Amino acid sequence: MSYLPSRREYDFVLYQWLDIPALCRHPHFAAHDRATFDQVIDAAYKLAEEKYVPHAAKSDANEPHFDGERVHLIPEIKEALEAYIAGGFLCAAFPPDDGGLGLPYTVTTAANTVFSTANIATAGYTFLTNAAANLLRVHGSERQKARYMRPMVEGRFFGTMALSEPQAGSSLSDLRTRAVPQPDGSYHLFGNKMWISAAEHELSENIVNLVLARIDGAPAGTKGISLFIVPKYRLDADGRPAARNGVRLAGLNHKMGNRGTVNTALNFGEREPAVGELVGRENQGLACMFFMMNEARIGIGLSAVASGMAGYRYSLDYARTRIQGRLPSNKNPAARPVAIIEHADVRRMLLAQKTYVEGALALCFYCAHLIDQQEIEADAARAEELRLLLEILTPIAKAWPSEWCLKANDLAIQVLGGYGYTRDYPVERFYRDNRLNPIHEGTNGIQAIDLLGRKVSMNGGAALAALAARIRATAAAAQAAGGALAGHAAALLRTLETALSVTAVLTQAAQRGEVDLALANASYYLDMLGHVVVAWLLLDQALTAQRAAAGAAPEEAAFYAGKLQGCRFFFTYELPKALGHAELLRRLDDTTLNMPLDGF
Amino acid sequence: MSYLPSRREYDFVLYQWLDIPALCRHPHFAAHDRATFDQVIDAAYKLAEEKYVPHAAKSDANEPHFDGERVHLIPEIKEALEAYIAGGFLCAAFPPDDGGLGLPYTVTTAANTVFSTANIATAGYTFLTNAAANLLRVHGSERQKARYMRPMVEGRFFGTMALSEPQAGSSLSDLRTRAVPQPDGSYHLFGNKMWISAAEHELSENIVNLVLARIDGAPAGTKGISLFIVPKYRLDADGRPAARNGVRLAGLNHKMGNRGTVNTALNFGEREPAVGELVGRENQGLACMFFMMNEARIGIGLSAVASGMAGYRYSLDYARTRIQGRLPSNKNPAARPVAIIEHADVRRMLLAQKTYVEGALALCFYCAHLIDQQEIEADAARAEELRLLLEILTPIAKAWPSEWCLKANDLAIQVLGGYGYTRDYPVERFYRDNRLNPIHEGTNGIQAIDLLGRKVSMNGGAALAALAARIRATAAAAQAAGGALAGHAAALLRTLETALSVTAVLTQAAQRGEVDLALANASYYLDMLGHVVVAWLLLDQALTAQRAAAGAAPEEAAFYAGKLQGCRFFFTYELPKALGHAELLRRLDDTTLNMPLDGF
Repeated sequence: MSYLPSRREYDFVLYQWLDIPALCRHPHFAAHDRATFDQVIDAAYKLAEEKYVPHAAKSDANEPHFDGERVHLIPEIKEALEAYIAGGFLCAAFPPDDGGLGLPYTVTTAANTVFSTANIATAGYTFLTNAAANLLRVHGSERQKARYMRPMVEGRFFGTMALSEPQAGSSLSDLRTRAVPQPDGSYHLFGNKMWISAAEHELSENIVNLVLARIDGAPAGTKGISLFIVPKYRLDADGRPAARNGVRLAGLNHKMGNRGTVNTALNFGEREPAVGELVGRENQGLACMFFMMNEARIGIGLSAVASGMAGYRYSLDYARTRIQGRLPSNKNPAARPVAIIEHADVRRMLLAQKTYVEGALALCFYCAHLIDQQEIEADAARAEELRLLLEILTPIAKAWPSEWCLKANDLAIQVLGGYGYTRDYPVERFYRDNRLNPIHEGTNGIQAIDLLGRKVSMNGGAALAALAARIRATAAAAQAAGGALAGHAAALLRTLETALSVTAVLTQAAQRGEVDLALANASYYLDMLGHVVVAWLLLDQALTAQRAAAGAAPEEAAFYAGKLQGCRFFFTYELPKALGHAELLRRLDDTTLNMPLDGF
Repeated sequence: MSYLPSRREYDFVLYQWLDIPALCRHPHFAAHDRATFDQVIDAAYKLAEEKYVPHAAKSDANEPHFDGERVHLIPEIKEALEAYIAGGFLCAAFPPDDGGLGLPYTVTTAANTVFSTANIATAGYTFLTNAAANLLRVHGSERQKARYMRPMVEGRFFGTMALSEPQAGSSLSDLRTRAVPQPDGSYHLFGNKMWISAAEHELSENIVNLVLARIDGAPAGTKGISLFIVPKYRLDADGRPAARNGVRLAGLNHKMGNRGTVNTALNFGEREPAVGELVGRENQGLACMFFMMNEARIGIGLSAVASGMAGYRYSLDYARTRIQGRLPSNKNPAARPVAIIEHADVRRMLLAQKTYVEGALALCFYCAHLIDQQEIEADAARAEELRLLLEILTPIAKAWPSEWCLKANDLAIQVLGGYGYTRDYPVERFYRDNRLNPIHEGTNGIQAIDLLGRKVSMNGGAALAALAARIRATAAAAQAAGGALAGHAAALLRTLETALSVTAVLTQAAQRGEVDLALANASYYLDMLGHVVVAWLLLDQALTAQRAAAGAAPEEAAFYAGKLQGCRFFFTYELPKALGHAELLRRLDDTTLNMPLDGF
C-alpha cells in the first residue's frame, strides 16, 4: 500500500479550493498552467514511490556513522537525491534566470511534501539546500550567487543553516561564534555549532554552510550577529572546491527519529582557519536569516504534515483490511468479525487524524499561496495585507501542525495496536520522525511568544485584523450557504470574537508592563488561535466541497461527504477547546508563573 | 542525577495521605509496621539505583536476539533480577504460607514502582512472574501450587500470561488455540500466540506459560475458553524441569520501546506435543484470568506512572541546571541568562508533568490500597463497596495514566529541546517505553467500553454511586476547609454532577437499544470520568497537604505549597476539559459513528 498523500486531496486543495492555476494569468507564472503543475506533481509521486519510500525504513535502522574521516550514509539516499535533482525538483520555484523553473511556490511545496511524506530524512537534504540557495538568491552578492548559489541550484553543492550553539539553543542573542576580519576581506570563524543538519556527508561536491557569528566588537545580543558562507571546501578562482576549510565535525547526534538526515556538532577554526565570507551587511545576519524564516517555518509545518499524513494513510489502509471483533451491539460470537474501521473508536482515531492532517495541510498550503500572491501583487495595500497575514500565520503554521500531526501519529500507532508498536510497521517511525518538529526552527514555546508577544500586536494589530477579516468573510459565506455550515459559521464567529477580546486583555497587560504574566500562557494562546485558524480553513474547504457535491458522481460525492464530516468533527470535537483556553487566558492565570520552584 | 520517584512524594502518599500503617492494626498485617515498610522501600531505592538504572539504556540499545536456539539478553538483566529475588521482593505480598512476606499490596506496589521507574523492561520479568504465580495461588490445585507456583515465588521459574493471538488482539472471543484432552488427563495444545512477553529466555530454570485455549467442543466465544499451564520444560515427578515441551518460539517482536522485555510469537504443538494441564475448571479460563486482571491493569497504569515519573524527574533536574535565555520582560542581552525553569512555559510543562504523574500515582496507589482493605474487611457491605470501587476504578487506572503519563513523557522531551530528541538523554526512551501502555492488557478503547458499557451500570449503578459518594465526601471536607480548596470543591461537584447526568443519558440510550451510539464516544467518557477522579484525588491530597502545612518547617512548607499548586493547576488547566467532553457525550454525538467509510 502507499502512504503518500491522497492525490484526490491534492487536487481538491490545489485546484478546487486554492485555484492555483489562477496565478498563471499573471505574466510571472504565464509559462505554466494546470497541465504543467500536474506533470510536476505526477512526477513527484512516481519518483517518491520508486526512490524515496523503499529505503525509508532502512535509513532509520542504519543511521549515519563517522569513521573518523568521512560520514557514511546508505547509498540509496544519494541515488534518490540524484533522481530528484535530475527530475528538476531542486529550487524549482526559483526564477529561470536563477536556474529554476519559475513554478509557483505552492506547486513546488506540494511536490516536496510528497517526497517528505515518502521519506522525511532523505528529503531533508534538498529542503536545506533549497533554503540556503534561496537565502543567497536574495541576500548574496552576484559573485556569491555565481559561486555558491548556482552549484546548489544544480545540485552539485548542498547547503546548511548553522544557527544554534550548544549553550544557546533557542537564545540566538547568546551566540558566541566569533568572526575575525582578515586583511583580504574574508573572516576567520571560531566557535561551535550544534544541531546542524547535513553539515557533513559525501552526497555533494561541497557543503555550503550559512553560519551566524559575531564580528569582533559587534554589539551584544541579536543586533550584533552577521551571516557568513563557510564552505566545507574553499573554492578556487574558478569556483571549484579546493582546500579543506576549517569547519570540522565534532560529532554526530544520535536522534530518536529523522535518522537519515545526518545531524552534527561542528567546530570552527579549531586546528586550521575556518574561512568565511560575509553575506549582506555586518550585523544584519538575523535580518537576512529571518527573511527566509517564514518559508523555513512553513517548511517545518509541512514536515509535520508529511509524517502525520503518512501515518494517517497507513493506518487508514490497515483499518480497512484488518478484521477483528464485532460491534458492541452484536453479542453473537459466531457472527463474522468486521474490519476494524467499523468500530466507532477506530473511526474516531481516523477522523481525528484526517482533520489534523488536512487542516494542517490547508494551513501550510494557504501560506505558500500567500507567498505566491505576494510575488505578483502590484497593489501596495493588498501586498501589505498578504505580508501581514503571512507574518501572523507563520508561527501557527510551524507550531500547530507539529503539535497536532504528531498527535495524529500517536493515533496511527493506536489504530494498529501491538503491530503499531513494532518496527515491522512504519507508524512508530513516523511518530519518531515527527517528534523533531515541535523542537527545531524555534521550539513551539518560542513560536507562541513570537505570536502573542509580537505578531498579534504588530502594526497596531493590523495582522490580526487582516486575519479576522478573512475569517469573517468565510463565516459570512457559510451563513449564506445555510444548513450545517451556517451552524459552524456561528461557532467560528463566536470563538473568533472570544479570541480577539482575549487578545486585547493580554496585549493591554503587556503594554502596562506585565509582560511575563501576559506571556505566561502563550502556548495556550497559540493553540487557541491555531484552532480558530484551522476551523476557518476547514470551513472554507467545506464550502468548496458543498458546492462541488451538487450533482457529483457517487465516488466524488463520497469524497465531499468526507470533507464535510471532517469539518463537522473539528467543529464538534476540537474547536470548543479554544473556548476553554480563552477562559484561562482572559483571567491572566498565574498558576504556572507563580509555581514555587522548590515546590516541584 | 536520579530519576527515581521523589522519596518525599512516596512518604506523603503512603503515610500522610493513605496512612498505610493503619492496616497493621489488623491481624493480617500485624507482623509489619512503618519501620518494615520503610526498610522495604529503602532497599528498593538502593537496589534500583545500583542494579536497574545502570543498564536501562544499554538494554534498549541491545535488544534481545535469537540465535535459532536461544534468546540472548544482556547479562545485566539477569544480575539485576537475581538481586531483586535475593532481596525478597518477588511475590512479597503473598502470605507467608505461600512463600511471601505478607506485606500490604500497596507497599510492594510502591517498591515495584521504584524498579519500574529505574528500568521498566527489566522489571517486566518479575511483574509477569508475580502475576502468574498469583493466578496459580488463587486458582491452581495444591499440586500445581507446589510444582509451579512455589518455584516462581522462589524465583527459579519465571511466568508469562499468554492470551493474544495474531488474528485476535483485543477480541478474546475469537481465540483459536485448541486444547485436545489426552487419556492421562493432560491436554495437547495447538495454535499460535502473539505479543507474549518473556516467553523465551535463559533467565530462569523454566518458564511457566499460562495459556488461554479452547477445549475441543467448547462453546463459541468467551464462554468456551479454558486456562492451561504449558511450561517450557515439562516437570518430572520431583518437579524438576525435564523434557522440552512443544511450545516454541516463532519469532521475536521488535518494538518501539520496552525493548529489554523479550516479546514473542509462539507456536504450540507444531513439531512436538505442547503438553498442558488445566487450571481451574473447563471453560472458566477467562474468569480465572479476569480475577487477576484488576491487579494486572493497575500494574499497567503503574508502568505508565513509572515511565512518566522518570521523565518528569529527569526533565525537572535538567530545567534547574540548564541555563538559557532571559524572561520576556528582560530585554538586556548583557543580563545573565537564567535556568530554564524560570521560563513560564517550561514551568507549565513541568507542572503538567507533575500533576499527571502524581495524579496517576495517587489513583493507582489508591486502588492498591483498596485491594489491601478488601483483604481485611470483615463487614460484607463494606467489602462489597471496596470491590465495586475497584471494579469501576480499574479501567481508569489502566487507561488514564497510560494516556496522560505518556503526555508527560512528551513534555519531558520538549523541556530538553534538541537534547531531549537524542538518545544521549533518556527522555526519548521513556516516551518509547511508555507508548506500549495504551495498547497492551486491553487497549484504552477496550477499557473505555468496559467502563461505560459495563462498570458504570453494574449492580444498578452501585459502583458509580460508591465512587460519587467518596468524591462528595472529599468535596465536603474541602468546602469546610474553605479558601482555594473550597473553590476547587465546588468545581469538582459541578463536574461530577455533570458526569453523572451524562452517564444517565448514555446508559438509557444503551438500554433502549442504541448501544453502538451510546458507546461511540466511550473514549471521551473515560477521559471525562478519569479527569473527575484524578481531580478528586488531587483535592484529597491537597487537604492533607494543607493540614500538614500549618507550622511546617520551610522545606516541608515548600513541598506542601507545591502540592497545593499542582492541585490548582489541575483544576484550572485540566478539569474544565471534562465539561467539554460532557457536552459532546450528552448529545449522543454521532459524527464518528456515521462517518461514511468511503469518505476517508
